[in-house]
This record gives sequence, structure tokens and C-alpha cells, in this order.
Amino acid sequence: MYDRPPEVSDGLRLHLNENTAGCSPRVLDALRGLTARDIGCYPGYEAAIRECAAYLGVSDDQVLLCNGLDEGLMALALVCLGPGAAAGGRPEAVIPEPAFELYRIYTDIAGGHVVAVPPRPDFRFALSEILEAITPRTRLVFLTNPNNPTGTRIARSEIHEVLARAPADATVFLDEAYADFSGETFLDELPRHPHLVIGRTFAKSHGLAGIRIGCLIGAASTLLPFRRVVPVYSVNAAAVAALGAALGDRAHVAWYVAQVEASKALMYDACDRLGLGYIVSAANFVLVKAGDRARALVDGLAARRIHVRDRGHQPGCAGCVRIATGVVDDTRRCVAAMEDVLCGDR
Amino acid sequence: MYDRPPEVSDGLRLHLNENTAGCSPRVLDALRGLTARDIGCYPGYEAAIRECAAYLGVSDDQVLLCNGLDEGLMALALVCLGPGAAAGGRPEAVIPEPAFELYRIYTDIAGGHVVAVPPRPDFRFALSEILEAITPRTRLVFLTNPNNPTGTRIARSEIHEVLARAPADATVFLDEAYADFSGETFLDELPRHPHLVIGRTFAKSHGLAGIRIGCLIGAASTLLPFRRVVPVYSVNAAAVAALGAALGDRAHVAWYVAQVEASKALMYDACDRLGLGYIVSAANFVLVKAGDRARALVDGLAARRIHVRDRGHQPGCAGCVRIATGVVDDTRRCVAAMEDVLCGDR
Repeated sequence: MYDRPPEVSDGLRLHLNENTAGCSPRVLDALRGLTARDIGCYPGYEAAIRECAAYLGVSDDQVLLCNGLDEGLMALALVCLGPGAAAGGRPEAVIPEPAFELYRIYTDIAGGHVVAVPPRPDFRFALSEILEAITPRTRLVFLTNPNNPTGTRIARSEIHEVLARAPADATVFLDEAYADFSGETFLDELPRHPHLVIGRTFAKSHGLAGIRIGCLIGAASTLLPFRRVVPVYSVNAAAVAALGAALGDRAHVAWYVAQVEASKALMYDACDRLGLGYIVSAANFVLVKAGDRARALVDGLAARRIHVRDRGHQPGCAGCVRIATGVVDDTRRCVAAMEDVLCGDR
Repeated sequence: MYDRPPEVSDGLRLHLNENTAGCSPRVLDALRGLTARDIGCYPGYEAAIRECAAYLGVSDDQVLLCNGLDEGLMALALVCLGPGAAAGGRPEAVIPEPAFELYRIYTDIAGGHVVAVPPRPDFRFALSEILEAITPRTRLVFLTNPNNPTGTRIARSEIHEVLARAPADATVFLDEAYADFSGETFLDELPRHPHLVIGRTFAKSHGLAGIRIGCLIGAASTLLPFRRVVPVYSVNAAAVAALGAALGDRAHVAWYVAQVEASKALMYDACDRLGLGYIVSAANFVLVKAGDRARALVDGLAARRIHVRDRGHQPGCAGCVRIATGVVDDTRRCVAAMEDVLCGDR
């Protein structure tokens, strides 16, 4: 079961990789335009699909909107690993660790077998180990670029090698939830790989986590079985209204991505000063290697109403704390508190 | 796959059992209060759960909020019929027909076997046939009170008999999506039946179909496995904000329920005048037995931009058309168009 962090209604939320600036003001305007009829009727998706496809540079039938990418992950697991996939032995999902925890949870729910690939000490993409983990029973490979919780990148050539090794009837899933922060995407390669499905969320760079909107992107024929398992009205009318507004405000995203870049530099500097290790991140967070100071850091920040995420229980992550690096002012506040917590008694 | 009706953006929508008045104005006010931070952060549910539980007269841990009741149905199927339930043979779901089509779809997705109970000619609850269909392999029984698409009731004693017959490790699911229109609920019996789960949606009487919010209600321990499969942030922030506002406006619901009652009387009268059969309904729609005039009725209304639902493909429903009976003015418009379509050439 997903380890849902306690609800915090106040303080600085740096524990869920959220957009610390929130959504574009245009999104709020769009939500204010919702009528009693919009709320009372089951949503229509044609316009939102068109906008999303145009934004991603794909055709409408290559997009499957989901109630957050979480729902897309569930659909992936059910289709690739569920009862219909069980002929010929228990279907396997290859998960390079440390990974987003829902991959494992949904694999379990669908009845699949998790083939976890342990991380390398530096968290670099464990290509050869992943290739070795792929078997004829592999039905799903979870890749995340950049990765969560490490922020590490996967090279394009490495994705190619995984695609080449995976069985023809397996799906290679490439989670690009944080791709707007790395500036890299594999979307342009989609036409060449019929068993590739790419995941996107608008929770992060677009600040729509609360409204729940993400999508799966793949060849039209590849997406058909996934369409069967995603409930027909799962994306809500507020998300439909918000999506176009959020996608239309490219300046908001560009500004936020620049804030994240500056924030990561601040965080690296702070770690250097404080003698903390860290992983250079291509995403909107930094995995800080706090070692035996991790618990003190998390608790000390929480006491100052700054919420960060202890990742110490994930493979290879002992002593690691994940900290979202969003708006620069928020990061400055976090860094000051980190110094206070770790150096306060000097 | 669910037969998603074509998207209609104009005209009178009487085809999806929606609230033709839409949501309470208080809901729109609540949505206007959403901030950029509310949209940017993953939602918190504690307040919404509390409000929902208080409204239903149960405790907080007896409520599992879902992204529309559809998601609750998926959870039911996955838990009761999915890979974990397959020991000892393929798990069976008993579905008295005609039923909401998603029961069958989710049963298939989960890998369960549909045991369909054919309807009686008058659509009365087929108690003895349902009891006979229950076997030791039954893991889930779908009951709907009042039923969709017929609007027929199930007597309390009949629900008791099903509960008594179902195996101890089976779940009896009672879908009360339309219970606000019948005024009957089985919620008060919950403490006596640990294998009962009740479903509610706020899409219908509360007019929140677009915003996606429903719930499963059961004993706290009964709900635990369902909590495991419902994605942790599946209910969106707009739904969270809307729910309390909608539940707080009991006058809006009471007014709408009265409109539905008056509308059903208008529809019955119209059917009598037009020589159409119908099923007396405890819900917010009427199943009209149009016989060989069904196609002409559906098409003729569509040409007048009034959308109703042909149900002729469902068991026992040949020639039947389901028409939502909401706001009286809307029903008057529909009735006038029905007369025009069926008598226009007299």
C-alpha cells in the first residue's frame, strides 16, 4: 500500500514534488468559467484531447487522457500484467530501483511479478543489469526519465537498447512526468516503436496536481487495450477546463522551469556548505544524501513547518531525503532552515 | 468496452441520467474559492471524508471516497474478482440484468466470470433466480436499488435474503446511486452485515457528475482491501471543494427530487397518451417501452436536439428507451417533442 504522507495544510510543501508556485492564473480563470451545467454533466474530452495532442506534437488518437498519470500506471499494469496476460506463466514487470512506488503497487494489484533491478551506487542508469533482467516473460518495463526519486537521466541510446531487448509483446513504459525540467523527451521516437508507451503528467511543471490530469501517449493501435480499462469518464470537468488554459500559458512553465534550475543550484551549494551529499538532478527536486543526519533533518524541517520526504526505505537510498526545488524564495527558506537544523548548535 | 455515447455539447441531455438543473450555486462559489495552491497541490481528503460520513450517518473510517462511483466499481471487481481472488477456481460475479454496463466490463477486466441473471418480463427483482445463481464460487453480487436502467425497487427483505445466501467470503454490493430519488437506503443495516458494501454517487441528486465524486461505504475492516486499490490521490481538489458545498445545500436536492417526481408523472401521462409502455420508476429516469417505435423516437428526439438513450440491446429491453426526468420544464420540452415525433404525421 502506498505510504501516503500525513496531510499538511500549512507550511511549505516540498515533499511531493509539487509546483510550489501552483497553477497559472489562467487556470483559475478557466475554473471560474465553469457553469452549473458543466459540473452537472459528464465531461466531454474532444477539445482537451485536441489541445493535449497539439501540445505534445502527436495526433489525437495517440493520446489517452487519465485521471492523473497514476491512473495511466494502473491501466498499464492491468493490461500488461493482468488476468488476460497470464497465459504462459506469471507476467513480469521490470522495475529499476529506486522507482516511483506505485509501479510496484500496481504490479502487485494486477497479479504481476516484480523484477526489481537494484541501483548502482551512483544511481546511474543500470543498463546492463536491466537488459539482463528482461526475459521472455517480461510484459512491462518501467523507465522514468528523469528518474524519481533520484533526478538522474537516461540516455537516448540506453532507451533504445531496452526497446531492442524487450520481447515484441512487452510494453516499454517511459514515464516522462518530469521531462519539462530536463528538456528531453522521447516523444519524437514514438512512430518507430509500436511497443513504447510514454507517460506525461501536468501535475509538475504545469502545477495541476490537485486537479488530476495526465496522459498515456502511444501508437493508436497500442493504446486501444488501455482505453478499455480507463473508466470512460475518469477525467473531471475541472481538469478538462484547466488543461487548455495551463498548456496555453507557456510563459508560466518557462518561468517555473528557470526557478527550478536556480533552486537546484542553491540546494547544491547548501549541501556543499553543510557537508551533505546529493545527486545532480534533471528534475524539480534534489535527493540529498544526509546519511545519519537524515532523520534529524526531516524532523527539524518539519518542526519549522517545512515538509520534505525521507526516502531512506527505498533501495540504495539509506540516509536520503528528497526535497522539491521550486520557487527560489521557497528554496531559500528551506536552505536557511536546513542550516538552522544542522548547524543550530554550533 | 463501454458504449460511450457521442459527445453532445448542445441540446437537452436526457441520455446519461444527469441532473438537468446542474449543481447547486454553492458548489460554483466553492470552486471559485480554489487557489493556485489548491490546484497545484495533491488534495487532502480529511475534511471531505468527515463531511461525507456525517451526511451519510456513518463514521469516517466507513467511507472510501472515489473518483466517481465508477472507480469504486473497478475497485470492487479488482478486489473481489482479481488475481488475488482466483484461488479455488474462477471467481464469479452475479449480475441481475438489465444492469449498469460497467459491472460486466469491470468483471471482465478483473478476470472474473459474469453470472448474468436474466430479467423477469416485468423487471421485478428476480429474487429466486438470483439466489439460485449464487454458488460457493460467487465472490461479488451486484445489486442496484433503484435499478438502472429500469428504475425498479428491491425490497429490504429481498436484500436480506441475498445477504443470507451469499458465501461468507463474498461481497454483496448495493449500488445506491439513485437512492435519493427513491428515499430508501440500506445504510442503517450496515453494522449488521460485514460483507455488505454500499455505493453512493453525488453525480445524480447533487449534480456533480462532471466533477467525479462517489464513495464506497462499509465496515472499516471490510473497506481495507478496497483502499489498497483506489489510487491515493484519485479524487480531485475541485471535487473535494464541491462536495461539502453540495452536501450543505439540502434544499437544492429536495427541490430537485420534487422536480423529478413531477417530471415522472408527466412522462407517465405522456406515455399513456402516446400508447407507450413504461416502467414505474423510483429513480430520476423512466424506461419507456416504445417497441418498434423506439428507433424513430430516439432519432426524432435527436433531430430536435433532445438526447435520450436507446437501451434496446440490454437483456429484456428490446424496444426500450431511457429518458432522464429532471427539471419539469425540461421534461415538458421532451414530452412535447415526443408527441411531435410520434404524432407529427397524424
